[in-house]
Amino acid sequence: MKIGVLGTGPVGQALATRLVELGHDVTMGSRDAANETAAGWAREHGAASGDFRQAAAGAEVVVNATAGSHSSAAVAQAEPAPGIVLLDVSNALDGNFPPGLTVPPGDSTAERLQREHPQAYVVKALNTMNCDVMVRPELVPGEHDVFVAGDDAAAKAAVTGLLRQFGWPEAAILDVGPLSAAQGLEAAVLFWVALRMAIGHNRFNFHIVQSGSAPAS
Amino acid sequence: MKIGVLGTGPVGQALATRLVELGHDVTMGSRDAANETAAGWAREHGAASGDFRQAAAGAEVVVNATAGSHSSAAVAQAEPAPGIVLLDVSNALDGNFPPGLTVPPGDSTAERLQREHPQAYVVKALNTMNCDVMVRPELVPGEHDVFVAGDDAAAKAAVTGLLRQFGWPEAAILDVGPLSAAQGLEAAVLFWVALRMAIGHNRFNFHIVQSGSAPAS
Repeated sequence: MKIGVLGTGPVGQALATRLVELGHDVTMGSRDAANETAAGWAREHGAASGDFRQAAAGAEVVVNATAGSHSSAAVAQAEPAPGIVLLDVSNALDGNFPPGLTVPPGDSTAERLQREHPQAYVVKALNTMNCDVMVRPELVPGEHDVFVAGDDAAAKAAVTGLLRQFGWPEAAILDVGPLSAAQGLEAAVLFWVALRMAIGHNRFNFHIVQSGSAPAS
Repeated sequence: MKIGVLGTGPVGQALATRLVELGHDVTMGSRDAANETAAGWAREHGAASGDFRQAAAGAEVVVNATAGSHSSAAVAQAEPAPGIVLLDVSNALDGNFPPGLTVPPGDSTAERLQREHPQAYVVKALNTMNCDVMVRPELVPGEHDVFVAGDDAAAKAAVTGLLRQFGWPEAAILDVGPLSAAQGLEAAVLFWVALRMAIGHNRFNFHIVQSGSAPAS
């Protein structure tokens, strides 16, 4: 599959590298086509690099792995083609500690990208964990989960297919419904940061444990 | 133990009822001492009711189970005595759907209560789950967790003691550090709401699954 990955940071690199390993045709995109991080990554992995627009050109899936506070600008520059699946893994943190979100209550980066690109199918996933765990769930032992939100069933299925390739068991992939659920997934990163500080490393993840039956009342 | 529970809603009722069952001396507090919900609950359970100040008077632990957006007013009316443990289980939701928080980024209801009552020991816990699960963790099968944040070790130990009485196994009680971690715990409720919609009932909880060892790099 032809996939563009927007972002050259640890998240972009982890995702792009894994997608190359899985045999996909990957272009890493950055604001500047001459970005040396992206070019170096592409050389090392036999893949391509370019500016955001070049990364998205002809791609079936575009992964937004830029910082959430820069994502609107990055995706605008990418000019995603109609019908493209835009997998948004971003978090819009404000740089304070403990961090806050730069997106106001009642909104999310994913929904904003969807409003800005109504012809794209935005799917939110993977933003609730460390980037190495995203692409190698076996780094955390036992059952733990990844969450998918979006308004288009086919686009969610395409993302779920990638998650399965990363190694996520089917039972670990939780469809949390419409893209508005991204508000909850994006808030989860603040919970994650609190846990990260207490645990002391980032090799952990959420598992949702549920009763098989609804409460009687 | 003499415990005041501020709030007459489902959360206050679940906590107060369980605390009575466990043999504690419980007063349910509301804004108005004549509140019929509180009085009816007290009659039914052989416990006491009163206004917020009466509920907190002489208590070793005061549980804030009011809605987060009303908590400042409620706890101010309670006038918690110096040295009291103030267990804050509240969430400050804005009433929209999906909900947002009424507390701005970089703050939390728990920290605000601590600033307003510097002589109290505020501990945040239990706000990340349904109120029936709070007091009967066995309603959700298997391993799942409760999170405790606060700046005073003795106050956190007092809260942990209550959690153990509720039935939380020691391994399920995660100390997430200082009270500022309440920012993450309070954000988690937005994640919870997204999951609640997808799961269709509220008998679920978070379990944090972690690798036993830190990443090599």
